[in-house]
Parts: sequence; C-alpha cells; structure tokens
Amino acid sequence: MKQELEANLLSPLPVVLVGAMVGGRPNYLVIGYISPFDFGRYVFFSLYKKRYTRIGIQENRTFSVNIPSENLLAEVEICGTKSGRDVDKGTLFETFLGELETAPMIRECHINMECEVAEILDYGQNEGIIGRVIKSYADPECVVDGKLDMRKVHPILWATGGDFNYYRLGERIGEEEDSADQQEADADPEH
Amino acid sequence: MKQELEANLLSPLPVVLVGAMVGGRPNYLVIGYISPFDFGRYVFFSLYKKRYTRIGIQENRTFSVNIPSENLLAEVEICGTKSGRDVDKGTLFETFLGELETAPMIRECHINMECEVAEILDYGQNEGIIGRVIKSYADPECVVDGKLDMRKVHPILWATGGDFNYYRLGERIGEEEDSADQQEADADPEH
Repeated sequence: MKQELEANLLSPLPVVLVGAMVGGRPNYLVIGYISPFDFGRYVFFSLYKKRYTRIGIQENRTFSVNIPSENLLAEVEICGTKSGRDVDKGTLFETFLGELETAPMIRECHINMECEVAEILDYGQNEGIIGRVIKSYADPECVVDGKLDMRKVHPILWATGGDFNYYRLGERIGEEEDSADQQEADADPEH
Repeated sequence: MKQELEANLLSPLPVVLVGAMVGGRPNYLVIGYISPFDFGRYVFFSLYKKRYTRIGIQENRTFSVNIPSENLLAEVEICGTKSGRDVDKGTLFETFLGELETAPMIRECHINMECEVAEILDYGQNEGIIGRVIKSYADPECVVDGKLDMRKVHPILWATGGDFNYYRLGERIGEEEDSADQQEADADPEH
C-alpha cells in the first residue's frame, strides 16, 4: 500500500553552482532544481526570488552553470548557506569568462556552461529561469574520445523528500565493461 | 585549459517514467530532463513533441511522474525505445490511480506523483511541461520516520555529454553515520 507524503519526492538531483555578476563581482549560488531542456539547447532552473544572485541575472540576463565535484563540498556548503550580501563568494574560486562578459564560471568545476536568459516564469516565491546555452566546457581529463566520462567528474547528488543528504555517483549499470555505449545511446532517454 | 564541447553537459539526471492516459489506456514514457520547481510544488520536464504520450497530456491536462528502481531497468529500456503507437506499455506494469482519474501511476515504482498541467512552453521540437503536483506517494519501506531514504529507492541515474550510461546512486557523503540530517537540512540547496 502506497503512503502519501507531503514532500518533494523528485530526486536525486545534481548539485550545481549558478554564477552571475552582481555589482561587478562574481557571485555563486547553489541550485538543486535544474534540468536541461529542448535537447540541452536550454537549461531550466528554479530560483528563489530573495537570492542575491538574482539581481545579477535580472540585470545582465546572463548566468553560468558549474558542476562541482566532491572535493568542493565545503565550498558548496558555504555557497548554499551564506548570501552574497554578507560574503564575497567570488573569492572562493578562480573565475574565468567565456564568450559572455557577465557569466562568471568556476575554474575548479570540471563542467561549465554559459547561458543567456531566454525567459523568466513567475511562480509564487520562485522564478523559473530558462537559459539558452551559449557554450559548454569540460576539463580534458573528464573527456575520452570527445565524450564526457561522468565518473571522472565526481558530481555531488542531492536527495529530497526529507532525506536531504549528499550522495556520490554510483557504478554504471546495464552495460558490460564500457562496451555498450551504442546500445545505451539507442535507448537515450533524452527527452 | 578548458575544452569546449558541443554537447549537453548538465547531468547526472534521475530517470523517470511519465504516465498519461492515451485513448483510454495508460502509457508510460522515459523522461531524462526533469526538475522540481517552486519548492517542489511543481515539476518541469522537457517533452519531445512527437511522443505518443503527449497526446494524452494535451487531452487530459494531467500526467504522473514515477521513479523506477534498478530492478526495472529492462522495462525502462522498453519504455524508452518503443512507442505507445506500437506497443501497449500499460501491460508492463500494474497501474493505480490517485485523486486524478487520468494520471496513471506505476505500482512497481517506489515513488509516484500525480500532476495537473499548469503551463506548456513551446520551444522548437520540444515542449516544457510544467505540472502542479497534486499528491505524492512512496512505498512505506522507503520511508523512515516520515522521511524518504533515497538509498532504499535504488533510483537509476543517467549521464549525458556523450557518456549516455545508467548509474546507481552512490554512498552518502558529507555526514557522519546518518547523524548529520539537521546540518544537511540547514544547507538545503532546494532552490
């Protein structure tokens, strides 16, 4: 028999750091509700309206998405608990820029994406930010034959529904010793 | 030095089965691009317009989100590669209904959510479906003291960027023997 729960049960989710330029300084915010959209040409994320980073996103209409690895968990916790109003989070990381001048990206994160705001949806205390992905970057040590190997990224996952813990990525399943790439691509649940 | 990659690098993502009633029959589709929205009161997902399930979502303005476990990987692959136009995917699972009469849910999935369409965004070949969560359900064996334990769900994760493999959830990190729940909740990257 199923049990009804008044909680968000949709997870685990990748923890990302969203970057924006606020008052001329890079600021980084932890986001847990994010998804690719339209074959990955766009990203969607849920942004609490009180967040300091929102000022920069509204002003510049640009932001970045950065995927932190397990070794950055302490920095992630600072970015998730301290506001850019009180702490200069730009000093936590080395920032680099790509094509956009106002989408600061984090050098220490293995994966970075720079985005332009396409649409902002107004839902209660949150906004749904839809960004068009301008360019995506990875550290070469995570790329094998032009393809990402997510095991080398060591992403941080996060569970909801009251669990509220961080998790590692586990082992691959449904393949035999890395040989099933094509089979997996055929079953690509991309959308 | 960062390497530019023309690929969607935002993952790992939870694999879910979205359910809808099409022509009076439950149909289930694999979705890999999905996120909670507005504190989990809503969900957002990217739907390829050619999908058979879309007919039911458009017609009934309702759908379900179901989180399959590792033991359902074979069924997930069928749902991800076969269209409801050719195969009756309603026979793969035992369907149950909650409050809504047209949001079929999967008994074999540990987590289920029934949703009403709030908004549909038109983006090229895909739609962004925003659904209001009406009710959420979990199997009691995954719930401890009213909270979900995601380790008991055994969700399937999926990596993009050319990786295209399924993964297990790994171990918890950033806590000492399950004792750090409050600390984690304080750092809640919910939005």
